[in-house]
Amino acid sequence: MKAYDQMTKEELLREKQVLEQQYRDTCALGLKLDMSRGKPSKEQLDLSQPMMDVLRADSVLESRLGTDIRNYGVLDGIDEAKELIAGMIDTKPENVIVYGNASLNIMYDTINRSMIHGVLDHTPWCKLDKVKFLCPVPGYDRHFTITEFFGIEMINVPLYEDGPDMDMVEELVSSDASVKGIWCVPKYSNPMGTSYSDETVRRFARLKPAAEDFRIYWDNAYCVHHLYEDRQDHLLDILSECEKAGNPDMVYEFCSTSKVTFSGSGISGLATSPTNKADILTQLTVQTIGFDKINQLRHVKFLKDQEGVARHMAKHAELIRPKFELLTRRFEEELSGLGVGSWTKPRGGYFITCFANEGCAKNIIAKAKEAGVVMTGAGAPFPYKKDPRDSVIRIAPTLPPMEELDEACSVFITCVKLASVERLLESGLQ
Amino acid sequence: MKAYDQMTKEELLREKQVLEQQYRDTCALGLKLDMSRGKPSKEQLDLSQPMMDVLRADSVLESRLGTDIRNYGVLDGIDEAKELIAGMIDTKPENVIVYGNASLNIMYDTINRSMIHGVLDHTPWCKLDKVKFLCPVPGYDRHFTITEFFGIEMINVPLYEDGPDMDMVEELVSSDASVKGIWCVPKYSNPMGTSYSDETVRRFARLKPAAEDFRIYWDNAYCVHHLYEDRQDHLLDILSECEKAGNPDMVYEFCSTSKVTFSGSGISGLATSPTNKADILTQLTVQTIGFDKINQLRHVKFLKDQEGVARHMAKHAELIRPKFELLTRRFEEELSGLGVGSWTKPRGGYFITCFANEGCAKNIIAKAKEAGVVMTGAGAPFPYKKDPRDSVIRIAPTLPPMEELDEACSVFITCVKLASVERLLESGLQ
Repeated sequence: MKAYDQMTKEELLREKQVLEQQYRDTCALGLKLDMSRGKPSKEQLDLSQPMMDVLRADSVLESRLGTDIRNYGVLDGIDEAKELIAGMIDTKPENVIVYGNASLNIMYDTINRSMIHGVLDHTPWCKLDKVKFLCPVPGYDRHFTITEFFGIEMINVPLYEDGPDMDMVEELVSSDASVKGIWCVPKYSNPMGTSYSDETVRRFARLKPAAEDFRIYWDNAYCVHHLYEDRQDHLLDILSECEKAGNPDMVYEFCSTSKVTFSGSGISGLATSPTNKADILTQLTVQTIGFDKINQLRHVKFLKDQEGVARHMAKHAELIRPKFELLTRRFEEELSGLGVGSWTKPRGGYFITCFANEGCAKNIIAKAKEAGVVMTGAGAPFPYKKDPRDSVIRIAPTLPPMEELDEACSVFITCVKLASVERLLESGLQ
Repeated sequence: MKAYDQMTKEELLREKQVLEQQYRDTCALGLKLDMSRGKPSKEQLDLSQPMMDVLRADSVLESRLGTDIRNYGVLDGIDEAKELIAGMIDTKPENVIVYGNASLNIMYDTINRSMIHGVLDHTPWCKLDKVKFLCPVPGYDRHFTITEFFGIEMINVPLYEDGPDMDMVEELVSSDASVKGIWCVPKYSNPMGTSYSDETVRRFARLKPAAEDFRIYWDNAYCVHHLYEDRQDHLLDILSECEKAGNPDMVYEFCSTSKVTFSGSGISGLATSPTNKADILTQLTVQTIGFDKINQLRHVKFLKDQEGVARHMAKHAELIRPKFELLTRRFEEELSGLGVGSWTKPRGGYFITCFANEGCAKNIIAKAKEAGVVMTGAGAPFPYKKDPRDSVIRIAPTLPPMEELDEACSVFITCVKLASVERLLESGLQ
């Protein structure tokens, strides 16, 4: 079939009729499918079920150092859990604080601490007139929700294949002292699935911020989430790069086992310089006596070490790779050449991004919803939920079983085609 | 022996010599004992060891409603955990949000939310010139540390046998709109061990705050922590009393299983009105996708219900009651009649409070420390760590084994006597 923008108005109207019939047929099926959130499937969760047996009633619940982990204390986590987290993100255990069940909560707390307590000895942000964050887009909606909640102004920065537009980042960070942070998902990014190049990481490390309390919020959420054993992205360790560049305190790095073991019952970690860590602990000791050390030990006993994590993640990959490939293969077969947009083919992470033609994303997502397929809301990958081109659609393939995913994909493809044709006819450009 | 203040100077000097010799002998023993923190003992923690087997690798990890608790979601906790928490504090499950491993963290977050987001539609406290909290004293040091961290001014209110000085509370709360809260440990209070009378609870419920965003921070930490099955304190349910009094939104109530199961790996809850709960959830959904639901189910399977909790707590009581009784019996036998102060005989909770003579607490605690016995720091039960009479000593008897506790008690008694004699001699009143 030829590209839609090469069709005459008559051809387009005929195509529209065909697609509308397809769409009506689809709606009549009364589907209830969900490709909206990056949640692991039941089968993925089953992979960690043996973790429930690694600590038992007759286990000695002590850390390696002999601490009774059933009691209060150990604010920054047991040593073996620090090692596990450090191994996942290629940093040193002494940089790590092990938290509770979610890195989202760490990120919230980190922004919150900066608001109330300030970063190191700097003025708490709640005392400032204006605080700004750079937001590479498309990005992770929950990051933007946190910064919006705290009244922080968000500035879009384009995200390319090899990372954010670093010219723009360098310019804004070095010229504006109200720019206090940037949200990054540097590896298999949400939702693009792309990773930052070595050059990008080094440019980050060499930033010369106007604000001394500027920090890079490095959400390494998909650090070990490869889809292919033989084609993996490799990310430079930002903490050591910053140290080398004379900016040791410029990063907070986050990670968790939420998509390694159980999504609500994992462990999470923050890695940063000794100076930042000491500052954080002065606040953390007011907030808590310590996090769940039994769950920390449970994770260590189950995952063991970096190699154990890699073996476990390979099992996840086996389960989800076919889902990613199903979608990209069908997009390739049924959409390419039509001029309806493009899509990513990630080597890891949890998402595929579809770049629909300008002005089509909302319509596609609304149509899919009416046909019983829930997608991530239009605009979600942007601050204030505003996609300036109304083009980006985040697709989360992991949760549904293959057959459902296949059905949902059919619906989605029909909606993409129909919305694209409608848009062309509206524009009157034929 | 006659009371010290009835002795002549010569008698006192002789007594001092005897005590100094005792103290030197004690120091020579090189003890290392700890009565400083309210931590459960190893034997108490062993009581919950079977909890490690209630969920296993072959368990179906679903909530009663069929939710896969291994995945993301369920922001306010699974229903059965809400019921468990509600049963512990005599409230309705629908009032409860189940959080993570510690109620301290909930309290921190609650103050924090009020600072940043405000209470319901009221001005965030960080925008106000002055925020004040009432602090019944002696009280819990970690409460005061939280309010101090946020720059909230703390006002001491005397705590009596039946609760805080309610005349003073009523006066301050109704006349000063900058008074936004009061910290309460209403049952087996930390450190006095006393409980609020029904009349006190009702006077709380009938408060007429000048500030609409005034809240009672009701830390029901020792709700089920009785020492005696036949002599238990009963606390009126503050939430329903407030509802009856036309103040449904005036309370945040906190509780946890930290001293029921494992101290770092329990579950915790906040109970409040539907209006407050809805407000809290709008912030909580920014902070987290949900807490550890597997640990919630683990607790429900292990403790079962209110009766299960009561049976379990009776086992704790058997272990710690002898420790409380050892101390109070020895104080009775060796200190009473000397005029060196008084002490509480709690029916529950985790602490005994010793009211030493004015000006003696710091000296006693310092002497004990030098002899190898760590007590809670002098002043800790007061805001800003300032005990205006330098009199209150918090004693935490649960952690040490009986023999160690007995040794520590000997040291403490010697220090109390010696410090009291020194004080009398200094004052020159004989």
